[in-house]
Amino acid sequence: MALQVVIMAGGKGERLWPVSSAQMPKQFIPFEGDKSLLRATFERSLDLAPVENIYVVTSKDLAAKVTEEVPEIPSGNILAEPVGRNTAPCIGYAAVVISKKDPEAMMAVFPSDHIIREPAKLKEAILFGAKALQSHPDLLITLGIVPERPETGYGYIAPEVVLLSQGGLTLKRVKSFHEKPARILAEQYLRSGYLWNAGMFLWRVDTILDMFSRYMVDLSDELMKLKSSLDTDPESIERFYLAAPKVSIDYGIMEKASRVAVIPVDFGWSDVGSWDAMGSLFTTDAKGNTIRGSGELVDAERNVIWSTDKHIVLIGVNDLVVVEGPDAILVCPRACSQQVGTLAKKFTKGDKQ
Amino acid sequence: MALQVVIMAGGKGERLWPVSSAQMPKQFIPFEGDKSLLRATFERSLDLAPVENIYVVTSKDLAAKVTEEVPEIPSGNILAEPVGRNTAPCIGYAAVVISKKDPEAMMAVFPSDHIIREPAKLKEAILFGAKALQSHPDLLITLGIVPERPETGYGYIAPEVVLLSQGGLTLKRVKSFHEKPARILAEQYLRSGYLWNAGMFLWRVDTILDMFSRYMVDLSDELMKLKSSLDTDPESIERFYLAAPKVSIDYGIMEKASRVAVIPVDFGWSDVGSWDAMGSLFTTDAKGNTIRGSGELVDAERNVIWSTDKHIVLIGVNDLVVVEGPDAILVCPRACSQQVGTLAKKFTKGDKQ
Repeated sequence: MALQVVIMAGGKGERLWPVSSAQMPKQFIPFEGDKSLLRATFERSLDLAPVENIYVVTSKDLAAKVTEEVPEIPSGNILAEPVGRNTAPCIGYAAVVISKKDPEAMMAVFPSDHIIREPAKLKEAILFGAKALQSHPDLLITLGIVPERPETGYGYIAPEVVLLSQGGLTLKRVKSFHEKPARILAEQYLRSGYLWNAGMFLWRVDTILDMFSRYMVDLSDELMKLKSSLDTDPESIERFYLAAPKVSIDYGIMEKASRVAVIPVDFGWSDVGSWDAMGSLFTTDAKGNTIRGSGELVDAERNVIWSTDKHIVLIGVNDLVVVEGPDAILVCPRACSQQVGTLAKKFTKGDKQ
Repeated sequence: MALQVVIMAGGKGERLWPVSSAQMPKQFIPFEGDKSLLRATFERSLDLAPVENIYVVTSKDLAAKVTEEVPEIPSGNILAEPVGRNTAPCIGYAAVVISKKDPEAMMAVFPSDHIIREPAKLKEAILFGAKALQSHPDLLITLGIVPERPETGYGYIAPEVVLLSQGGLTLKRVKSFHEKPARILAEQYLRSGYLWNAGMFLWRVDTILDMFSRYMVDLSDELMKLKSSLDTDPESIERFYLAAPKVSIDYGIMEKASRVAVIPVDFGWSDVGSWDAMGSLFTTDAKGNTIRGSGELVDAERNVIWSTDKHIVLIGVNDLVVVEGPDAILVCPRACSQQVGTLAKKFTKGDKQ
């Protein structure tokens, strides 16, 4: 029973505007050296499964870009969504494709635009989870990040009893999922040992399809139609997506299912969800500045510089984000960088005409 | 006795880096609409003299750019300096060229990179000065800007007795020239009615050549050699410049000559000597921001934005300069923008390779 890996690469790229954009979402941006987050996710996946078992779900518009970035993947493994419908339809579609190949396959799901500093620990966690699935085949397993701070930008997972324990890793039953909390609640979560929900999953494909049929009945019906017509009718994917609701897998299934477990992990994870987060990940000088591309500073501390085409010079400023994308330049305090995602939608000129 | 106008266009363009550069000094930057400061200076000059009497002295490298910018000027009136030697050799060279055409000509000298908001007042001042030269042909006349503030970035002119007065304009004898003062001295100058030295002059060409022979003897000898060989030997300009010292007309002649007079003027002058000055000249929104090119602000006040190719977005920042040139982007507080000229030299990557 080989592992099948599904990489979700449909992100819109608003939070790292103007470097990211609808045409160039975060997963395609070169982060470490020339390597994109998608490419890094793919390479981590290659450690878990042979290339023919790795799938990327992306939007129709980005499919060609995915092929460029991971040319090794068989073209049939790039699953193009005609419209974005959040993670439940995306995971359902991939589960159908995998199920046709191997109805008892194990399926791991990873976002394509996260950073994992210690990929060896990810591999350990997934292998540990895969082993757990052999004795507990009906579990939905999620990876929960051990939090570093009372972050208000993530959902939390409350674990309870230990189901399995081995080599420093534990599998705990999940008591409940929690939406992004207010600050005071986040601090309480941190004290209570809650984990960050990072959207990484592991389950058997028959289990997840069973969960769809139990908790998302309409979507499950559409998935079964898709399954039966996928090989013969090229329009079936289009029809499936038009019928599918916009629902996350968390809301649609994870929060409702009873047999959910979590593996707490601490492998240098970040979703690089803001320019401030980017700065914290890649500090490059003694004054706390982060420079990607071509930049230069005079009397300047703790700034985040990202240049695309031009040389960026900062004189006498602190704690700023100064980012040059292909079409636009953003300047804001690091503390404001959480707003960028929301505001990016209105900066229409930032995208190429 | 028609007026001859000499426009000095040899500026290096460091203070408005990275929009200005050695290849694109300030005088070529489009300021109001598409009009460059050089073009505006030329158009003001056309109000004073026919096009065949207008000369531009510039560097060899920039001569083609001058021709593009003011195609009306006869090519023989574009005087190209093989090397920059400050204003004394530049003015001497122009005086020699003009003197060969009309040894008794009146000659006005203007920098090419200043803004004058009320050109009609400039014309009045020059016509008044020209009239004064008829009765006082041996005067060196300079225009002195009535100062608005105790600026430490300009030289000052101390006027004394009135020599001539007409229609609200006065011509005053100059008591002394003063270097850029410290703040406390600048305040004293302001109270004493001193004027800013803006480098604008009016004199008879025979008078200025006489002054060269009196106060800059060696340079005068070189000028006389140049005069006699200019028409026959194309190498003579090169030889003159190699022999010429780097001296300003202020230091070389104005500060030493005895018959110097000044016309106080107030015609909306600025030398646009920093990005901060630029901001003050072109405020464009109710929050005191200045936007040239494509820019957008959210919760941001009193910033100066200049975009060249890309859309500039500022969120939650105040009193910043954010400037995009062809090759580089500068971010600094407006209060730091005086340093840009000095620092620009070291930002080597700002110039095209």
